[in-house]
Amino acid sequence: MNPEPKKLSTDPYKGVRDFYPEDMFVLNYITSTMRSVVEKFGYQEYSASILEPTDLYRSKTSDEIVNEQTYSFKDRGDRDVTLRPEMTPTVARMIAGKRRDIPFPARWYSIPNVFRYEQPQRGRLREHWQLNVDLFGINSLEADVEIITIAYNLLKSFGAQDTDFVIKINNKNTVRKIIERELAGEDVRKYLTLLDKRAKIGEEAFKEEQEKAFGKVVNYDIAEAAESTKEIIDTLIHRGIGSVEFDPYMVRGFDYYTGTVFEVFDTNPENRRSLFGGGRYDNLTANFGGDPIPAIGFGAGDVGIRDFLEVHNLMPEYTSSADLFIATIGDVITDAQKLAQQLRTAGVNVAVNLTDKKVGDQLKNADKQKIPFVLVVGEDELKNNEFTIKNLATGEEVKRTSVQEIVEVVKSR
Amino acid sequence: MNPEPKKLSTDPYKGVRDFYPEDMFVLNYITSTMRSVVEKFGYQEYSASILEPTDLYRSKTSDEIVNEQTYSFKDRGDRDVTLRPEMTPTVARMIAGKRRDIPFPARWYSIPNVFRYEQPQRGRLREHWQLNVDLFGINSLEADVEIITIAYNLLKSFGAQDTDFVIKINNKNTVRKIIERELAGEDVRKYLTLLDKRAKIGEEAFKEEQEKAFGKVVNYDIAEAAESTKEIIDTLIHRGIGSVEFDPYMVRGFDYYTGTVFEVFDTNPENRRSLFGGGRYDNLTANFGGDPIPAIGFGAGDVGIRDFLEVHNLMPEYTSSADLFIATIGDVITDAQKLAQQLRTAGVNVAVNLTDKKVGDQLKNADKQKIPFVLVVGEDELKNNEFTIKNLATGEEVKRTSVQEIVEVVKSR
Repeated sequence: MNPEPKKLSTDPYKGVRDFYPEDMFVLNYITSTMRSVVEKFGYQEYSASILEPTDLYRSKTSDEIVNEQTYSFKDRGDRDVTLRPEMTPTVARMIAGKRRDIPFPARWYSIPNVFRYEQPQRGRLREHWQLNVDLFGINSLEADVEIITIAYNLLKSFGAQDTDFVIKINNKNTVRKIIERELAGEDVRKYLTLLDKRAKIGEEAFKEEQEKAFGKVVNYDIAEAAESTKEIIDTLIHRGIGSVEFDPYMVRGFDYYTGTVFEVFDTNPENRRSLFGGGRYDNLTANFGGDPIPAIGFGAGDVGIRDFLEVHNLMPEYTSSADLFIATIGDVITDAQKLAQQLRTAGVNVAVNLTDKKVGDQLKNADKQKIPFVLVVGEDELKNNEFTIKNLATGEEVKRTSVQEIVEVVKSR
Repeated sequence: MNPEPKKLSTDPYKGVRDFYPEDMFVLNYITSTMRSVVEKFGYQEYSASILEPTDLYRSKTSDEIVNEQTYSFKDRGDRDVTLRPEMTPTVARMIAGKRRDIPFPARWYSIPNVFRYEQPQRGRLREHWQLNVDLFGINSLEADVEIITIAYNLLKSFGAQDTDFVIKINNKNTVRKIIERELAGEDVRKYLTLLDKRAKIGEEAFKEEQEKAFGKVVNYDIAEAAESTKEIIDTLIHRGIGSVEFDPYMVRGFDYYTGTVFEVFDTNPENRRSLFGGGRYDNLTANFGGDPIPAIGFGAGDVGIRDFLEVHNLMPEYTSSADLFIATIGDVITDAQKLAQQLRTAGVNVAVNLTDKKVGDQLKNADKQKIPFVLVVGEDELKNNEFTIKNLATGEEVKRTSVQEIVEVVKSR
């Protein structure tokens, strides 16, 4: 007797997701909303491979991410490669690579997948999709205002109310200058990393950690930081973006930020988490040689947005991308396909029955697939050239004779 | 003197592509056309992570691909993972994983990126995007006809003529049965691999290789193979799909095919290459346990399609996704942004000038970005509430006073 062959697991790799049609529907809803919002502001889509030379991340991204959280390996030609953990180094590389050809200011966006090796938990997976929006070639208040306005419009486009979220703003350059009066060299960076953790570890631990690291609690002049964000906050409020406030303790983890930083938080008590954020990074392109190109942008992940939509009851209801299912009675497949082809040419998405199931079972199947309309084709229908269209949600039935009439019923969806 | 810090390269990883906005425009054109065609036939989108457990490919995919062409490595938790070289094992895994919940027949599609480690050359890169279309749960002539009809419609939707391509059809199950009368066991598989190479190596080498491997030239009864494809070819021709023909020497590389196989070839003498192909694979889901679920599908890569479009002069012309650029004269940014916001709400994609460049330079910049329309906002325009809109392609200028009128001009694009 042969042993049973070993069965393969149907599980995906740990910490990543399968997107069944219902899941893909949600991902597509999220990414198409992102796309629509940023294109309204004139942003152009770009993309790149998920595989990047590992060198791109060395000393650019935060140490924790590079040393502990990247997927890095050697390819068959002994090159060090990494699955991108974020998009910013890639876009800086691309902008630097064609700096002579690109018309600046450049408004660019992408919705790449990014990988981080970390313990999967709510809101954190090993792979997620992330909208990246960046404005290159201009360092001005208006550039910062535009990027934060897009962040605001993004959540509004998902149906959020102004009170559902708050955009916290700070200026990392100012904070760095303030702290440079108190600490020197690597200690400044260390303080900023600690400041970034303050919200998680609490005021008490924040002080203790400072005592341990620097022998004192550092004097951080909050008023000066507030002053440096006043103009941008006033401008945003004047333009109708009410959900903004100064936060002296929000400085963002990445070292590359050089000015305005912001982070969007959910205000719902069940989900009081950071949703996404970004900031100004004027020196990143200089790593590739040449003068630095000023830049500001943000990245917003699909997982955080999805959690936000769920908590605030903003998830869309699944429907099939098919508009119509053609059920068949008897041997009418050639005629059914001919009708389907005419409807397709008129813009209708049509699935045709290919089974020999009873018509009732065909309708149940279409309903299970959430296809909104069913049309029955049998010999009588073909002889009389009259077809019954059923709306599966309401049960309503209508009879129609021409392709144009059928299109009208289905398009009324 | 400090040495210059080492400059980072702006090149992407070898054999993969950066998609600058102009390149992304082409990729989006290709993928959105694919999407539109398959959705017309009622197919639903799914997706999955590019990272899969390596086990998924062992003895499923062709030996050459698994042993020499995958990107495989160990993650930080010592799991063997692979960047998917193709989508079929993934979709079989997903279908098998939810076989009790999925309404069959299931029409599914995806446009994943896939990786192969091979020497980059024309039409072959290390990463490409690939439309995958699969029909699960039904083994019938009509299912095979539908899939080949979609392949045909795909090329037609890109603007191809019936004479620009030919769809070659064979039946791998029949060929296997014929050869099993001549050879046994592993030799059958070896013969099929050789047959798959025949077009490349030529008739002479094909015979020599057979002599070497089996001690004889195998008697392959072509008439029997032709007979087994007659009904499908007749049906396709009857339904208006003229570009189909029987090809006894086309059997497709993958071992998992169990019936109809087809491959689409460019007929242009400059590009007489295989564009894409697919076939029936009824046993693949059985690797995950349970009864096998019949399946037929195909995969069409973006690189082959792009080459086809170029050779046949079918490439679309680039335009910005922005409809309108608002140029500014003087300190009018708040008003310009207000107008932009009203236009955005009305569905227009608007980029606003944020620089202090002269208006002439702003227009040049918009033109370089291929934004079709420019509107100028200055103090005079605001006072008179009348705005000049310039069509940058034709040079034509019109004056408009209301948001609704501006929208009409821009939407006429």
